[in-house]
Amino acid sequence: MSGIVDELRRALGESVVTDPAARKAHCRDTWVMNELRDLRGETFSIPLAVVEARSTEEVSRAMRLCREARVAVVPYGGGSGVCGAIQVPEGAVVISTAKLRGLVALDSAGLIASFRAGTNGMDAENRVREDGLTIGHWPQSIEVSTVGGWVATRAAGQFSTGYGNIEDLVMDLEVVLPDGAVLRTRRTPRASSGPDLRQLFLGSEGTLGIVTEVTFSLRPIPEASRGQAFHFASLAAGIEPIRLLMRAGYRPPVIRLYDPSESRRHFPETCPEERAMLILLHEGPALMVAAEAEGVAEICRETGGIETDRSAVDHWLEKRNDVPGFRELLEKGIIVDTIEVASTWDRVVPLYERVTRSLSEVESVVLATAHSSHSYRSGTNLYFTFAARPAEPSRMADVYRECWKRTMDAVLELGAGISHHHGIGRVRRDALPRELGESGIAVLRAVKRALDPGGLLNPGALLYEEDRP
Amino acid sequence: MSGIVDELRRALGESVVTDPAARKAHCRDTWVMNELRDLRGETFSIPLAVVEARSTEEVSRAMRLCREARVAVVPYGGGSGVCGAIQVPEGAVVISTAKLRGLVALDSAGLIASFRAGTNGMDAENRVREDGLTIGHWPQSIEVSTVGGWVATRAAGQFSTGYGNIEDLVMDLEVVLPDGAVLRTRRTPRASSGPDLRQLFLGSEGTLGIVTEVTFSLRPIPEASRGQAFHFASLAAGIEPIRLLMRAGYRPPVIRLYDPSESRRHFPETCPEERAMLILLHEGPALMVAAEAEGVAEICRETGGIETDRSAVDHWLEKRNDVPGFRELLEKGIIVDTIEVASTWDRVVPLYERVTRSLSEVESVVLATAHSSHSYRSGTNLYFTFAARPAEPSRMADVYRECWKRTMDAVLELGAGISHHHGIGRVRRDALPRELGESGIAVLRAVKRALDPGGLLNPGALLYEEDRP
Repeated sequence: MSGIVDELRRALGESVVTDPAARKAHCRDTWVMNELRDLRGETFSIPLAVVEARSTEEVSRAMRLCREARVAVVPYGGGSGVCGAIQVPEGAVVISTAKLRGLVALDSAGLIASFRAGTNGMDAENRVREDGLTIGHWPQSIEVSTVGGWVATRAAGQFSTGYGNIEDLVMDLEVVLPDGAVLRTRRTPRASSGPDLRQLFLGSEGTLGIVTEVTFSLRPIPEASRGQAFHFASLAAGIEPIRLLMRAGYRPPVIRLYDPSESRRHFPETCPEERAMLILLHEGPALMVAAEAEGVAEICRETGGIETDRSAVDHWLEKRNDVPGFRELLEKGIIVDTIEVASTWDRVVPLYERVTRSLSEVESVVLATAHSSHSYRSGTNLYFTFAARPAEPSRMADVYRECWKRTMDAVLELGAGISHHHGIGRVRRDALPRELGESGIAVLRAVKRALDPGGLLNPGALLYEEDRP
Repeated sequence: MSGIVDELRRALGESVVTDPAARKAHCRDTWVMNELRDLRGETFSIPLAVVEARSTEEVSRAMRLCREARVAVVPYGGGSGVCGAIQVPEGAVVISTAKLRGLVALDSAGLIASFRAGTNGMDAENRVREDGLTIGHWPQSIEVSTVGGWVATRAAGQFSTGYGNIEDLVMDLEVVLPDGAVLRTRRTPRASSGPDLRQLFLGSEGTLGIVTEVTFSLRPIPEASRGQAFHFASLAAGIEPIRLLMRAGYRPPVIRLYDPSESRRHFPETCPEERAMLILLHEGPALMVAAEAEGVAEICRETGGIETDRSAVDHWLEKRNDVPGFRELLEKGIIVDTIEVASTWDRVVPLYERVTRSLSEVESVVLATAHSSHSYRSGTNLYFTFAARPAEPSRMADVYRECWKRTMDAVLELGAGISHHHGIGRVRRDALPRELGESGIAVLRAVKRALDPGGLLNPGALLYEEDRP
C-alpha cells in the first residue's frame, strides 16, 4: 500500500505531505459525530499521504496514479462540512485543494470571476469586492469553506432567496474526473447542448470528480440595501406572508423567520416573548428597494405582522456567522446539531410541528427549534436545531441518532425533502434511498459506476461502501 | 423484427397504432433539412409502430419489451423540434405521448401544477390561467409543443429573462428510464441530496429516458404589466443598456433587441430606418413595475436610446408566434433557418458581426440578421436568421450546411455556446464535441452507456450512431 506514497512523491515531489500531524488533520470533516468520537479518544484512520496539489495537472496526475494502484482518493477542501462526507477510509490518499488558491481571472464588465477551487470563500468574496462586485453567496461557513466545497456540497448562502443558490451562481467549472481527465464546461450564460454536465458535480460530495476551478457569474454591490423586521403570533403565522410575498414576485435576498424560541434567543431586544420574528433584507437599485419594502410591509401588516426596530437586521448581519462550536458543547455534555430540510408550502407547518414535538420527546432533549431561511415560489426550507444533555454522557450518540431518525422519518412521510443545503455525507445515507426512490438511487449508482468504475473516489459518502461498484 | 409489433399489441392492445399514415406522421420532426428531403420526395424510414401510451405504465411496458427485443425506441412529443432530434431509424418503435395529456394536480396556494408529458403547451398554460396562474414559459412553439418536449429539449421561453428557462420552472419530473423503471424526482423546492437528477433529462433529447409527467412551480398572473420601446444606433449600441440593466438587477421578463434589418422587418411603423429596436416588458407588483420601468428608461436614455411608441410591444405580443413555415419558403426556392447561440458580454458584438458578415458571403444568401432575446447577468443570446435562394435549387442543402458550418465555427472559435435553446438534434452533432470538449463528450457517452447500455433510446440524436455504445 505504501508503494503509492513513493510513486506520488516521485511524480509530485514536495506536494506530497506525509507528516503525521498533517495526515491526521485531513482525516475527517466537522460532523458532530466525528467530534464526539474524537473527544472520546476514538481513533480515525488517517490518509497515507496528503497531496497538496499546486495545479490541476497535479490533481490529475495524483488521480491517475491512485487509480492505477487502486487506492481510494478523498478530496479535501475546507473540511468544514457537517454531514460526514469526509471520513478517510483505511489506506486512502487525500487530495487537498489548500494550495490551489486565488483568482484566475476577473472580467468586471462581464461580471465573471474564476477562482481556483481551494480559495477560501471570504477571500474570494473580498477579492471581487475590490472591484465593487459580489459573488452573493454567503454560507454561514464562508470564512472556513472553499469555493470548490460550495460546488461539491450544493451549498446555499444566506442571500439565496434573492440571489439564488450555488447552482445559480456558477457559470462554469473545471473538474478532474476519476480517470484523471480534465473536464472544463463551456463558458456560456446558458446552453441547450445536452444535459447540463455541471450538475453532475454540484452535490456530488467529491464522489464523481474533484473540482479544481470555479467560475462565478457576479453581481455589483447593490446600489441600495434596506432591512425590515416584523413579528408574528407564531411560526405558522409568519409563514403566510413569506408565501404571499414570494407569490407576488418580491425577491428580498434575505427572508428569515424564527420560531418563538429562536426569536427569543436571537432577538431578545427587538422581539417580544412568544412571538415569531421575521427579518428581511432588500437589495438592488434604490427605486426597486423602496418599492419592494413598501409592498412587503403591506403584506406583513395585512397578515398580522407588527413592525419592529430594523436594528434587528443589523444585529443579525453582525452575528450571522457566529456559531458555538460543537466541541465546546460536547465538552459540557451537550450534543447539538442542525437539520435543514425543504418543503412545499402545504407541509411546512405540519412538518415544523411534528418534528419539533417529536424531537422534544426524545430523552434528554432540551431544545428543539426551527427557522425558515431560504424561500422559493413553491415552498421554503426549515432549519431545525436540537440539543440534548443526557444524564449519562455515553448516551449522546444514541440520542443523536434517534433525533436524526425521527426527523428524517417525518420529512419522508410528509413528502418533503431531506436536505436543503448541507448534503448527505454519512449522516443522511440511510434516508437518501427513500428521498430518491429505488430508481433514483439506481441512476445515481449507475452514474457513479460509469465515471468511477473502481469506486475509488470518496467511497462511503452519499452511498454506503457496500454500494461501491 | 415485426415480432415486436405483435408483442406490443398483445401487451398494450389498441395503444399500438400501425396504420401507415400514422407511422409516417411520426418519422421525423420539423427540421428544415427534413422538410427539404420530404419536398424532394426522398423517403424516410418509418417506425414499425407508434405506441400511443395511455399511462406511464404503458410507456414502461413498451420500453421493457423493446429493450428485451433490442429494438430502438424514439420518443415523440409535439414533433415541433427544429434540429432533427427526431428521425426514426430503420426498425424502430415510436412511443408517443399524444394520449398522455392533461392536468394531474393543481395546488393554487402552493403554486404547483403537474401535467402529463404530452399536454400541449398552450393547453397547460390555459389551464393554470383559469386559476389566475401562469407557467411563464412561452416558447414560440407553445401552440404545437408539449410540456415533456420542453424538458427534453431544455427549452427557453420568451419571458425567460425575468422568469427563467425550463430548468428554473420545473419542480419535479416523472421519467421512464431505458430499462422501463420509473423515476420520480422528489417534490421539494430545493435539495442538496446528491447531484440533481432532473438535470440528466433536461436537454437529453429523449436519449436517456422518456418524460411522462412534468410538475411546474407556477406564478400568479402579474398584478401589472408595462411595455417600453427604444431605438439605438446599432445592435452593438443596444447591447450596452441590456448589459447595464441586467447588471443593476432589473429583471424585465422580456428584453429583445433587433438589429436594424430585423427592426425594419418587424417594426416598420415604430422604428426608424437603420436603427436597432429594443423592446421590454415589465411584469410584477405595480410598484415594482413602475420602479423598474423608470430605472430602465434612465439607462436606455443615458446610453443613447430614443424612446418610441410602446405599441411596438403590443405588436410584438400579438405577432410573436407567427413564423412563416419552412415548407412554403422551400417551395419558393428559399431555404431559411435560425441559429440561436449564447455568449458572454465581451463576445456578443464580435460574434454578431462575424457571423452576419460570414453568412452574407455564402453564395445566394439574401438575408443574415440577428436579435438578442434572452439575457443574463453575464451574457446574452444571439438568434441568427439566414435565408438563401440558390439559382440552382439543388444547391440548397449545400448552402444550408455551409451557413451552419460557418456559424458553428465562429461560435466555437470565439468561445461562445453553440446552442441557447433549440438543442443539438442532428444539426449540431458535429459541433457538440467541440462545445463539450473531449472529456465532456466522454462523460456524456459514459452516462448514456450507463443508463442505456444497448444504445436503444433515440439513437442518432445528440451523439452519432457510431457512438452508440
